[in-house]
Amino acid sequence: MSIFFGVDIGGTSVKTALVSGDGEVLAKEPFETFPDRGYRDLCVRLKKSLEGAVSTAGIDIKQVSAIGVGVPAFIDIEQGVVVEAVNLGWYDVPFQEALQEIAGLPVVLENDANVAALGETWIGGGRGAKTALCVTVGTGVGGGIVIDGKLHRGVNGMAGEIGHLVLMKDGGPQCNCGNRGCLETLASATSIVREAKERQQQGQLPPDANIFGAEDVFKLAQMGHEAAQQVIGTAADWLGYGLALSAVTLNPDRIVIGGGVSTAGEQLLGPVREAFARYALTRTVEAAVVLPAQLGNDAGVIGAARLALQALR
Amino acid sequence: MSIFFGVDIGGTSVKTALVSGDGEVLAKEPFETFPDRGYRDLCVRLKKSLEGAVSTAGIDIKQVSAIGVGVPAFIDIEQGVVVEAVNLGWYDVPFQEALQEIAGLPVVLENDANVAALGETWIGGGRGAKTALCVTVGTGVGGGIVIDGKLHRGVNGMAGEIGHLVLMKDGGPQCNCGNRGCLETLASATSIVREAKERQQQGQLPPDANIFGAEDVFKLAQMGHEAAQQVIGTAADWLGYGLALSAVTLNPDRIVIGGGVSTAGEQLLGPVREAFARYALTRTVEAAVVLPAQLGNDAGVIGAARLALQALR
Repeated sequence: MSIFFGVDIGGTSVKTALVSGDGEVLAKEPFETFPDRGYRDLCVRLKKSLEGAVSTAGIDIKQVSAIGVGVPAFIDIEQGVVVEAVNLGWYDVPFQEALQEIAGLPVVLENDANVAALGETWIGGGRGAKTALCVTVGTGVGGGIVIDGKLHRGVNGMAGEIGHLVLMKDGGPQCNCGNRGCLETLASATSIVREAKERQQQGQLPPDANIFGAEDVFKLAQMGHEAAQQVIGTAADWLGYGLALSAVTLNPDRIVIGGGVSTAGEQLLGPVREAFARYALTRTVEAAVVLPAQLGNDAGVIGAARLALQALR
Repeated sequence: MSIFFGVDIGGTSVKTALVSGDGEVLAKEPFETFPDRGYRDLCVRLKKSLEGAVSTAGIDIKQVSAIGVGVPAFIDIEQGVVVEAVNLGWYDVPFQEALQEIAGLPVVLENDANVAALGETWIGGGRGAKTALCVTVGTGVGGGIVIDGKLHRGVNGMAGEIGHLVLMKDGGPQCNCGNRGCLETLASATSIVREAKERQQQGQLPPDANIFGAEDVFKLAQMGHEAAQQVIGTAADWLGYGLALSAVTLNPDRIVIGGGVSTAGEQLLGPVREAFARYALTRTVEAAVVLPAQLGNDAGVIGAARLALQALR
């Protein structure tokens, strides 16, 4: 049986894993990204990571059929080029060709949110879905769409970018994309922390409470702090509203919520489901289950392996 | 070459056409709907319409391979049942089976907006599109999605129902669907007429101006009446905003605007494009062309024929 090398490139770390044809992770071999060293250097370190993982898994490297790579970037699939990866500082990088040459294996690239969506629909929370919308809520909000097991990339790979649904038509917080009031500015970990800190400055939350991440805000809410509960309630309402807008177009049977913020579980998903039901057509709501992602940090490497598997077929 | 019978059932009239395998309309044979007479009566009259069209086209009825039917309804495709057609007063009607029995040909049903989308992407404004969003702006706002030439129905046929994107999160005009502030309540012919009449009552438009349809409002705008221009500008802004929300999910290369209101052409499409560009991601906007539908009232019958053709394959 073929084995695939799944790669998930992030701004600070690169996750890698050997994954079997049925989605089992055989070995992981993560390392630091150091994007400043350039993409060819990263390719060399990816080859080492592959060799290390092969050794750990106790397999023959000849069993590895292909490499799938998720990149936090806008990608030109046909050319195999990373067009724009802001977090890596990479622009127009011919990554596919470079990695193929250095690793000696077929390589396929994809946007990281799309890759995570492929992972979750393969063996995670979206397994068996006919039409799945997979959303990652972390520092930003990313998304990917999988229809009948295949990625719907859209015409230039932008499909499912629901973090950039403009939810506040007449303005709102400034988004990195240039617009204002995008979902990402209203329902990401970043926005939850920003809002909670504002409430803290206004004296609505204990001045000695550490608010570094969204998880701190969830904790304050669980402890009964009303302002923290409001911050989370508002973010959940925006997220549910964004999902409703997306679902009215897509009509999915599954909406999978992953990313750091989703680890809050029902504390977040409960109010998200309520908002989703409020803002979408009844039949659309009835058709769709909103549930948490299951693969955690492995969604990327598993999805990247799936990508490689599908490309080989 | 096979010939298909395309049927487009509306509340007041039924349009029918014999259509060749390459989309040419050979004969039309429309008639009044009279939905109160019941669905079996309609099936009998459809058979007569088919026979009339066959005679007009001078073909042999044996050349007709199948019947495609667009219904303004929620449809259970697997059962071939019209679940709910509010405008016809039909509920849980086994239309597919009845028409097959009476006409003696294979029958396939679909929602009317989806059928129109199939027509426009086959030989109309969406021809050659990879991912098309087709919108019909008339009394209401309907929509359909076609990906690689095939309908994306979604999980229960609700995909592309962009008339029910809730654009005013905190309220707005009451919609038939039960929600408030849906696109349909802000950018349909109905809403344009409603707003213009309100302006007229407020003395902003000539009291003797006849405002029966959206076309009257477009005319007043062309004549230089500022209030009419504002009504159209606002509707176009909402429509462009709705298209942006849908396109951020779908990432289409083509957005096709049909229906009665679209006959206003650039007077509507110009400001719609501007709003679309304002509220969507730059790359999403760059990928998508917004253009008018080309098949007019024939989109339904041609799309229904296409549906029949695809079902036979």
